[in-house]
Amino acid sequence: MAAAGRLHVVILAGGIGTRLWPISRRSRPKQFQPLLSARTMLEETHQRVLPLASPERVWVVTGEAFTSLVRSQLPAVPAGNVLGEPMARSSAPAAALAVARIARADPEARVLLTPADSYIGDAAAYRDYVAAAVEAAATGCIVTLGVVPSRPETGLGYIKRGERLERPPGAYWVERFTEKPDPATAASYVADGGYYWNMGQFVFVAGVFMERLERHLPEVAKGVRRLAEAGEPSQELMARVYQEMRSISIDYGIAEKEECLAVVPTALEWSDVGSWRAVKEIAARRGGLDPNPEQHVGVESDGCFVMAGSGRLVVTVGMKGYVVVDTPDALLILDPEQDQLVREALAEIERRGKEERL
Amino acid sequence: MAAAGRLHVVILAGGIGTRLWPISRRSRPKQFQPLLSARTMLEETHQRVLPLASPERVWVVTGEAFTSLVRSQLPAVPAGNVLGEPMARSSAPAAALAVARIARADPEARVLLTPADSYIGDAAAYRDYVAAAVEAAATGCIVTLGVVPSRPETGLGYIKRGERLERPPGAYWVERFTEKPDPATAASYVADGGYYWNMGQFVFVAGVFMERLERHLPEVAKGVRRLAEAGEPSQELMARVYQEMRSISIDYGIAEKEECLAVVPTALEWSDVGSWRAVKEIAARRGGLDPNPEQHVGVESDGCFVMAGSGRLVVTVGMKGYVVVDTPDALLILDPEQDQLVREALAEIERRGKEERL
Repeated sequence: MAAAGRLHVVILAGGIGTRLWPISRRSRPKQFQPLLSARTMLEETHQRVLPLASPERVWVVTGEAFTSLVRSQLPAVPAGNVLGEPMARSSAPAAALAVARIARADPEARVLLTPADSYIGDAAAYRDYVAAAVEAAATGCIVTLGVVPSRPETGLGYIKRGERLERPPGAYWVERFTEKPDPATAASYVADGGYYWNMGQFVFVAGVFMERLERHLPEVAKGVRRLAEAGEPSQELMARVYQEMRSISIDYGIAEKEECLAVVPTALEWSDVGSWRAVKEIAARRGGLDPNPEQHVGVESDGCFVMAGSGRLVVTVGMKGYVVVDTPDALLILDPEQDQLVREALAEIERRGKEERL
Repeated sequence: MAAAGRLHVVILAGGIGTRLWPISRRSRPKQFQPLLSARTMLEETHQRVLPLASPERVWVVTGEAFTSLVRSQLPAVPAGNVLGEPMARSSAPAAALAVARIARADPEARVLLTPADSYIGDAAAYRDYVAAAVEAAATGCIVTLGVVPSRPETGLGYIKRGERLERPPGAYWVERFTEKPDPATAASYVADGGYYWNMGQFVFVAGVFMERLERHLPEVAKGVRRLAEAGEPSQELMARVYQEMRSISIDYGIAEKEECLAVVPTALEWSDVGSWRAVKEIAARRGGLDPNPEQHVGVESDGCFVMAGSGRLVVTVGMKGYVVVDTPDALLILDPEQDQLVREALAEIERRGKEERL
């Protein structure tokens, strides 16, 4: 791999994770929380990529307010590799911010772009798929990973595969990226067999990404190049550039426009961990519906996911399938079928002027 | 009333209230807690009888461990009127402990015996019924209050009325006290119209009660007489007497055996507040399902009773009809249809060696 350029990993850690309140908070969003294990999601993500890239080739992009948190959670990563954005501009500018720096030093470098807050069941298998994607990136195209869909999920984007690549085996050209489908369309995608869930994982040659960025989002490319040239840009310069940066995701801004895209389908157990229902499902598969059993007493309570994290005793009687999340200053009791309504609750908390609980 | 003997009130405050955990605790059972208003149930009970008897004629019988709590909650009641039992022996010995003292000073005194932890909607109406019962007690019989049943409740004893008393109007002789009925029997009682719920409220002449006690429970009568004669009995004497006292309720030990009993039927809104379902029903009738609305945010949550008493924010999403009780060290989430299972949860807490949470 040395000849083809070393692999860098860019971890996107700028999410807010509103729907995972009260674990996810404004002051500490979900990726900085231990949601599914004793490690935070960011730490898990770093552990997953550790065999792929030594810490000095790991980059984290996050909100300015969270850079010290990232540095304390990933002490092995050089402080200068943790890039703080002065404001959120979605994933295309965030990815570009890091890739522009990598490309400036080594345009031939390979880059794996990964969200900080995905759940991936088998890290070793994941790394094998990434290796295949790195191989596919030698074509000079952007490569993405996809998951074989197990259900007609309407909350995710899908990738339609086209022809096979010559190599590596198992990789395909992408026919198109799709937006979140309606239920009937989602069902047809699953039945078709040629669609994969969009995981938000991308692999590419750094210089190739910058070239495509220049084509699809020239103003973003200009901004991040300017920052990369500045070396350690001042806060003022960062703010000026970001003020004029448009807010756009990689999917909309690049993947849906780009012609030269490949996909490596995977059989990974994966989730974007976007809601309490998702957390509950992962916990159930892993046999961890009761992560703090010493703090929970359930009587006639089946299928509940109880995070009893405040040191208090949680007793459930006659509860079926609910989610209970107990923290020192806030408690959530939720029907997971209605987990999207957490947002309404947060809006109400804000209306009441209790921002310190958000 | 002066000629007929003044009215004393004996408040029985020895209950444990297990099923109302986590508000009711071993160290502070429900009668010492503000469950349905800002006042504790004991304070509410005292307020209710205040116009009937000045504080020096109010007596409270409770566990020895709770005498100082009672004195702090009812500072107007003389300390010597708060009687602490060294061990629980049910209601007959508890009542007799106080009545023996009253009867020794004034056998003609009238006594109202009341639990400390009942809910009664209309205190003024209650006092009118007590006045009628005091009048009926002039017959030389024990008088009880009954509630016209509004549903075939199986968790309560019933009183079957017999012939009318000559006076006061509306009072009847009691044909019999019944134990808790099965559902079919309870339904027939309600349909009959001649049955009332046993509220555990009794009115009698002090000397009459002691005479009946002598007949039905001679060993209890002997014990409490000995303690009354001792004036301020030593802890050792109290313990010795109680050790030999049998544990028996007024209902089983006296009311079900006694021939000379009258009942004053009442149309009171009443509950023995024995379970969370009962608390929820009372709260719903009073429009107080959400007693701490500033601490609770409900989204698509109807008919839940949420006691958010720990200062934490409680958010419920998609919960219908549940009971949530939040305290600083323990949380209960309960289907009120299964409220009897709280006991199983407490047994489990004890098995885990977490007695400090009980």
